[in-house]
Order: sequence, then structure tokens, then C-alpha cells
Amino acid sequence: MATKYTIPHEVTYYECDVNRTMKLSTMIAIVIKVSEEQSDALNRGNDYIQQLGVTWIITHYEIFVSRLPEANEKVQVTTQAMEYNKYFCYRNFWITTEDGEELVRIESIFSLMNYNTRKISSVSEKIIAPFESEKITKIKRPPKIESLEAPDSVPYRVRFYDIDGNHHVNNAVYLNWFIDGLGYDFLTTYEPEYMNIRFDKEVEYGNQIESLFEVVDQQEDKKKTRHAIQIAGETYCEAQILWRKR
Amino acid sequence: MATKYTIPHEVTYYECDVNRTMKLSTMIAIVIKVSEEQSDALNRGNDYIQQLGVTWIITHYEIFVSRLPEANEKVQVTTQAMEYNKYFCYRNFWITTEDGEELVRIESIFSLMNYNTRKISSVSEKIIAPFESEKITKIKRPPKIESLEAPDSVPYRVRFYDIDGNHHVNNAVYLNWFIDGLGYDFLTTYEPEYMNIRFDKEVEYGNQIESLFEVVDQQEDKKKTRHAIQIAGETYCEAQILWRKR
Repeated sequence: MATKYTIPHEVTYYECDVNRTMKLSTMIAIVIKVSEEQSDALNRGNDYIQQLGVTWIITHYEIFVSRLPEANEKVQVTTQAMEYNKYFCYRNFWITTEDGEELVRIESIFSLMNYNTRKISSVSEKIIAPFESEKITKIKRPPKIESLEAPDSVPYRVRFYDIDGNHHVNNAVYLNWFIDGLGYDFLTTYEPEYMNIRFDKEVEYGNQIESLFEVVDQQEDKKKTRHAIQIAGETYCEAQILWRKR
Repeated sequence: MATKYTIPHEVTYYECDVNRTMKLSTMIAIVIKVSEEQSDALNRGNDYIQQLGVTWIITHYEIFVSRLPEANEKVQVTTQAMEYNKYFCYRNFWITTEDGEELVRIESIFSLMNYNTRKISSVSEKIIAPFESEKITKIKRPPKIESLEAPDSVPYRVRFYDIDGNHHVNNAVYLNWFIDGLGYDFLTTYEPEYMNIRFDKEVEYGNQIESLFEVVDQQEDKKKTRHAIQIAGETYCEAQILWRKR
């Protein structure tokens, strides 16, 4: 059974939006911190990985929200490397109450990318062994993301504070671009219950991106939104979100 | 002597920019959290204040940076209500190392605003007494902020995640707008050593703002930048920043 790694976290007011529930971008930033801490604890941190000429990239998130963490709430953030095959590592995250009730579950797919060629590198035993995850041969495919039909679009420019210590646009920033265009009324009426996000290409500092989105009505009190981040018509990231009334 | 209030804080990677030092906006968000916690501890929190029909507004920051906090660094964040007069409260913040070495000092001016009239309200003993700050008659005026001469300008739109639980654009967001336009090369070459920021009017959700700025050369390895946040030519916030080579 793979090793679990948990840290406690107290949700601050500035990690929350106007609903006083945690910003999606902050949620992603925190879970990534936990996986970095686990890697460090197992001596498989950034320094070790980079010395092998590779870096982790995240290609996919599925996010299941039972309830968003609230301002001042004390939560536990847990991660576990579940399974891996030749090219993909499947890692789960959980945000739970102090009593262990699941608030959010995130299923993610990580790959290793060669620093120089920018191509996917196979997962080496040396890197993965300490996480004690299960080796599988199957390639698990997350649900398909629906194409946009008649989207609206809002432009965003990658800002200095959007890039992190690795000179990448932090994954979390895409979540801001996705939801911002939905606007105040939508975002104070509905909350996400499921997100399916696929990262295709890296956006870089200074890029001007278009955030495309459309709202699809579901049964009463439910909405579905479809999203894409594009540069010059080319898709860099796609998502589909299911929403329920707050 | 006024009561000091301190919390420990460990700087995370996602609170830092590409330089692996703390984002200015995060720094402001954290110090404000500390003053809110002190107010809560003294039973003068938001609920108490609002029930009197007023709310705190911040009209001024002077920020003195000896060294910016770094990723993974453990710091102490302290606040103290120093002095007050009829309309203004003078509150200091310090970010220090665990050994007490000062990294950042912030001198701020707070006022109380009437919720309905949106006008400045005089500081009542009921609100201020528990902080044990000194009553003064003098009105302390921070250094003047120089006017812009031939500024560049970058537009920003207030985003959903820029507004906080009080439906205000969080003070910290202005710092992002100020510095972002200076660009990657400037912001990885220089770090702020002094900031003088005055808040004149409230920016609101959905507003399209212009961030005006200009860089003034000082002696070698030093720069001065002047800033203004404007809407339709009207100034909402002004600042002046001194920078030293990293």
C-alpha cells in the first residue's frame, strides 16, 4: 500500500473568495505543496529529479467537491501516489475535515518531461520506488472533455505573479482564467461539484490567452460549463465543470 | 504600551514569485490577517465593528524592506496599534526571522468608514480602548507621493477572485497592478526596499483600471518607480517605490 502524506491546513480569509469558500486556484496550489513535501520527505524532491534531467508535469485533474473548505476551517490535506505505468503516474489528493470527512478529492495524472527535449520521459524505478505505488500496465483514460459549440471569450495576459519558481505558469492560474468569465452572479449562485481538466501545452509568461467558455443548462439547479484556454486558436488547456446551486 | 500580537508563518512556494521571495500582495494579505486575528482576540472583530455601523478602511502604507521573506522560511508576523487621533489609527506590522531580525516593517494608517454614508467616522473609545494604543492630537502625515510625469500604462480588469468576503477589492490586489507592468527583466533584477502607497478611492468588481507607471533612474543599482491606479483619468491609488539590485 502506497505511503500517504498529510499536512494540516487552516483556511485563511485571503485564500477564499467572496463566498468565503476556498478559491479553486488556492486549493490546487496547496495540494501541489503537499505532494512536493512528500517528495522531499522521500528524497525525491525537485533537486533529485532535475539532476536526472527531468521535471514533473501535470496533464490531468479530476476534482470531486462534496463541499468547499470555508474561511477559518481547519482541514487535513492528504496525498498518495496510487499507481503508475510506463508514462503516467496516478496521484490522489484529499481535503478532509479534522474528523476525516471528505470535502474534496482530486485524481491527477503526472508525467515526467525531459528538460532539454521537452518530451515525455518514461517513469524510472529510481524516481518512483520510494512512493510505493502499484505498477500497472493499463493506461487509465479520464472521461472525455466535450468540445465547445458557441463559446464566449475573455482575454487574459500572463502576469509576473502567475509564474512560479520554476518559471512555469502555475497550474492553479488556469483555474482563475476558466471561472472568472462566468461572472459574479453565476459564481455566487453556483459552486463546482465536479471538474475535469486536461493540460495540453504550456502557457508562458507574457502570452496573451483567450479563455473560451459556455454555460449549458442541465436539470434545475444544475449547470454545466465547458472551457478552453487558447492562444491564436490553438488549445492549451480544456475543462468541463458541473455546478450545483450553493 | 500597546498590546503586540504575533503569529508564526511558514512561507510556501505558492506565496512566492519567480525570485522565490514572497509576493508583495501575499505579504499584505498576511499582515491584514494578523490584525484581524488581534481584533478578534480583543473582541473587536468585524462583527462588533459592523454592528456599530462602521468598517475599517486602510488609507496608507509605508513599507520598509530589509530583505524579502523567502520560500520555506519560517517567519513571525507581528502587529501593534501604535497611536490614534480623532480620525486616524496608526498601526505597525513587522515580519521578522525566528531570531527576531526585522525583514519587513509596515507602517499603516486605518480609518473607520460609516457603512451607509461611506464617510470617515471618528474613532470611538469603545472600539479602540482594548488595543491600548496611545491617544495623540497630532495628525501624522506620511511623505508626499510624487506625481507622474510621462507614464506608461497597462489596463487591468477587476476579477472575481480580486474581491474578498467583504465585497471589496482586497488591498493586496493593488500591489499586483502596480508592479506587474514593470515586467520580468525589471522584477528579477530589482527588489523593493521602500514603498509609499496611498489609497484614495475604492475600486469595485468589474471596473476596468489603468495602472500608470514610470521608472526613474537613481544612483547606480537603484531605481525609483512612480505609480497610479486610475479609472477614466481619476486617481484611485498612488504609490512610489524605491528598488535596489537583488
